[in-house]
Parts: sequence; C-alpha cells; structure tokens
Amino acid sequence: MLKARVEQLIGTRGEGFEAAREAIRGDAIRTPLLPFASGDGREVRVKAECLQPYGSFKIRAASNLLAGFSADELRRGVACPSAGNFGQGLAYAASRRGVPLTVHAPDNAAAVKLQVMRDLGATVVVHPFEAWWTIMCSRDTGRDDGLFIHPVCEPRVIVGNGTIGLELVEDWPEFDTVVVPVGGGGLISGIALALRSQGHTARIVACEIETAAPLSAALRAGHPVTIDRQSSFVDGIGSTRLLDEMWPLLSELVDEVMVVSIADAERGVRLAAQQAHMIVEGAAGVALAAALSPSCPGDRGVAMLSGGNIDHQILCRILG
Amino acid sequence: MLKARVEQLIGTRGEGFEAAREAIRGDAIRTPLLPFASGDGREVRVKAECLQPYGSFKIRAASNLLAGFSADELRRGVACPSAGNFGQGLAYAASRRGVPLTVHAPDNAAAVKLQVMRDLGATVVVHPFEAWWTIMCSRDTGRDDGLFIHPVCEPRVIVGNGTIGLELVEDWPEFDTVVVPVGGGGLISGIALALRSQGHTARIVACEIETAAPLSAALRAGHPVTIDRQSSFVDGIGSTRLLDEMWPLLSELVDEVMVVSIADAERGVRLAAQQAHMIVEGAAGVALAAALSPSCPGDRGVAMLSGGNIDHQILCRILG
Repeated sequence: MLKARVEQLIGTRGEGFEAAREAIRGDAIRTPLLPFASGDGREVRVKAECLQPYGSFKIRAASNLLAGFSADELRRGVACPSAGNFGQGLAYAASRRGVPLTVHAPDNAAAVKLQVMRDLGATVVVHPFEAWWTIMCSRDTGRDDGLFIHPVCEPRVIVGNGTIGLELVEDWPEFDTVVVPVGGGGLISGIALALRSQGHTARIVACEIETAAPLSAALRAGHPVTIDRQSSFVDGIGSTRLLDEMWPLLSELVDEVMVVSIADAERGVRLAAQQAHMIVEGAAGVALAAALSPSCPGDRGVAMLSGGNIDHQILCRILG
Repeated sequence: MLKARVEQLIGTRGEGFEAAREAIRGDAIRTPLLPFASGDGREVRVKAECLQPYGSFKIRAASNLLAGFSADELRRGVACPSAGNFGQGLAYAASRRGVPLTVHAPDNAAAVKLQVMRDLGATVVVHPFEAWWTIMCSRDTGRDDGLFIHPVCEPRVIVGNGTIGLELVEDWPEFDTVVVPVGGGGLISGIALALRSQGHTARIVACEIETAAPLSAALRAGHPVTIDRQSSFVDGIGSTRLLDEMWPLLSELVDEVMVVSIADAERGVRLAAQQAHMIVEGAAGVALAAALSPSCPGDRGVAMLSGGNIDHQILCRILG
C-alpha cells in the first residue's frame, strides 16, 4: 500500500521528484558530490549530505512533508518519532513555518541532536529504545500532540529523499554504484526510485552496521524478522526489525547489502575527517567504509554521507 | 612590477581568469557556497575551500602555476617555500605530472601537512621561521633544487586564486562583502581582481590574527613594516612583514582589515564544526569569526574558509 502510494506520488515520468525539488528549495541545499581518494583503481565520490542545514539529508524529507499540508492541517502541530536527524530537519522546517512540534526520541539518540531540536523550539520526549520503536510501528505516541508524521513510511518523505538521486544523475551520469546506509529504508528507496525514474541503472547497495543489521536478516529470511541489536556509536541506523510497510520497496529496489564492522565504521569517520575535512556521523562512516571496501562492486561508486551529527567527544575519540 | 605582470595576465576583459579556470579543472573542484546561521539579521555564506583536494584553495594556484610551464622547464624539478597548504597543493599537482618537488617549510607548519607532502613524494626541508621567511623574500633556497616557485608573488598564483571570485559572482551575485584571511595576500588580491574584472563591487575585507597582523601595521604606516609576531595555532596566516612586492596590490584592493583574537579564531573553528560539519584550520576560523562579528560591514557577507588542514589534536582541544 505504501509502495502504491509512493508510485502514485512519483507519477509516470517522475514528476513527483521534480515537484519535491521545487518544494524543498529554500530549506535544503544542493549538496556537492566530491572526489575521494579510493586507494585503489576505483573512482569513489561522496555525496555530502552532512553539509545540509542541521547536518543531514532529512531536511529534504521534512521540508517536502510540511510543504504538502495545509495551514489548517498544521494548526494543531505535528508529532514524530525520530532518532535525531529527521527530528532536527523537521524542527527547522517547522520553526520556519511556526508549526508546534513534538519529537519522540530513543534513549540512544545523540545529545547534540536533541539539544538542537529544543533550541529550534521543539518539545522532546525521550523513550527507552523498545518503547520508541513501538511508536515507530504503531504510529501512536500515547499523547494528543498533533498530526502524526512518520519519518520513513510516508510517500512525501521517500520522494523528498529521492531528490538526491536527481542530483547524482546530473553531476555524474557515469556512476555505476551507490552505497546508502539503511535505517528505516526511506533514503535508499527514494534514491533508487529517483534513479529508476531517470532511466539510470546504477547498482543499489545498502549498508548496515554489524551490531544491528535487520535488512541483511530480512533478505536471508525473505521477510522482515526481529534481530538481536546492540547499541553503538552508530545511532542513525540499525533497528531491531524492518518496518513491514517498507519491505515491498526494499526487497524490490536493493541489489545487495554490505555489513560493516564497528572498526571500519570508525575508519570511515576518520577518513572523512582526514581526507575530506568533513565531520560525518556513524551511518555515513558506514557508507564510506563500504564504498571503499574491495568487496564493493562497481568502478565508479557514490558513498552517501547521510549526516554529520556526531557527538564531538565520540568524534575526538575516533580521531585521537 | 608584480602588479603590472598580474594585470597583463588578467587581460582587458578578465580572459586570464577564464583561462585559469580551464587550466585547473581536473585538479581543483568548484567548491560550494553554503548558508551559515549568522545569529543576527545579516546573511552569511561560507565558501568551502576546505573541501578542495588536500584541503585548501592553494590547489587552484599550484595547478594554474604548473600548467603554465613547459615539460622542459619542469624537468629539473621545482622548489617552493610554503607553510603547508601551497606545498600540499603543489605536491599533488606535481605528483600528477611526475615533477620532482622540494618544499621548504617553517618550523611552525602543521605536522599533518608536511606528512601529506612526503606521502605525495615531495622532499620536505624544515627551517626556523626566520630563515624560512628569508627564503620567501630572497627566492634563494640555498640549494640547487630546481625552478623556484613563489607561493604568493606569482601572477599565475594570484590569478589561479582569483577563480574563486568568478564562482562567487555566479553563485550569489547579491553578496556585498567578502572576508578573506591574509597571509601573503595572494588570495585576497586574486579574488578582488576577479571581482573587479566582473564589474562586481563587493567590499573587500581582509582579516588577520591578533598575534601577527602585518597588513594592519602596513596600512597604519602607509608601507610594509616589520612587526612583533607570536606563534599560535593559526599557522596558515600571519608573518612578520608583508612582502614589498604585494604592497601595491594590497594597498589598492583591500577596503578594510579586521583583527581577530585567538579566542574568536577558536570560536570560528568550533562553529564551522558544529553548524557546518566542516573541519577548518585557524585562518578559516579567523575569516568566519570576522564575518560573524557585529563589526563586520555589509548585509550579505561571504566568509572565505580557506583551508581545513588543522592538527586533529588542536581541533579536539578546541571542540572539547
């Protein structure tokens, strides 16, 4: 059902992506695609979504989402569950429109992200991870805090994320592989659908962290399954289970999945700082490490640096 | 004489800048101009030269410089004095062309920069600061190490730097002020001349660090003077005296100069990390702090984030 709604929003010629691109202009920026030394013969470029306002691609989704509601619909305010980046993007977009916002965050969210939301005027409620995940699945916050917005399973979220795909095709039509971190799956789905709408055939490579890899487990089982999950510094991706609604999209769009170790994720964060002078969070470190790995397919790969919101204490431990 | 040679290279309609832009394509990237929250009503954007390969605008100059020599001229190799960033850019451009390079560095250069040059195949000779400055002025390295290249006082260096100005005018024609850190003065001169060639009238604001501000002293005296200089973490700018050759350009092109404290330079580095997710070096922190200062003129300012090569130990002390 989500899949059908997304396809309807996209339209037969990808008009939905072009409309999203117009809708988010002013909130989100067009991020650069930067060359990165791969160390072997392959060409790797990084899509620097960490340079977005508030440091993450999610501003694209948040902006596209709010642009689709009427002032009347937004009057009571909006509520969303978020591990941080979507909440930040939504807080920014909501503050610009004067819309009250409540963000429901898991207890492993980065402190720096929650503070930014509060600074932007949002109410932040912190839940134990399992309780937070229940909100993600049930769409029930247990409060009367306004229009519920899902950070992943919303057509306008997925299409907003997909605007990245249009930029990739414009900036480097020859790329043959894109490596995208998978949390809920909204980013990789949006990008894959946008590439398809452009007739682009790049290989869609998902990446996960070894401590929480529900997509790998689902692909093995043939359907979403609940997995063991350990906390780590990689706080933007990795849940206990894929959302059932996302499975029809992910199972169709993802070509393969790579699982990255904590040590390699840290190496990705370190390399981004040393070579590209950018501060990236764990999920982006996972994508860069996967794209640089000899086991990554393709000769012209894009690593999706999804965000830059990492506690600086953790960053400095990794750089030290 | 330098001024006349620069003007000749630029040509009557700015052809020299367009030629430089073509020459450096492939080595340098077109960097983004990113919005930055100013905290007051003014609009501030940052020119992210820290995202260049090897983390500094100097790749533009180094690339444009080597492109202007014949293979025969380059056969014996090249030598240059550099505090680090120009040496890195030149090492990169030289390694791509198979040209032997010797870099003469002052003893306060960041260790990370010198290592990168060595990794790119350059020979690095470290001198006490005063001896290094003598090489900058005399153009004599005391060795037979090839064609001497000056990192500042070369028409092709200044015009290579100026390609930044063309990009600013294209990306944000409405900007009214540009804040540029001054070391030798090659960056601000190039940008100012490029803006003039485009008929753009932005205010040209130089910035210096309080521990070494030779431009401020020269403007007060009406000519270059030798100043007291203290070392600091801001290693990319700040010498004991302006080069006499640069004075005719700087005295004509710079509208005003701002002097930034060490504390504010650190704040600039911290804000770039927190808000823009970029790692910038001290000189860029100086420019950002100056552009954000209430005493900075203009309503639509550009801060030149000249480079990102800072020792990570220093970065983490500032972030901590």
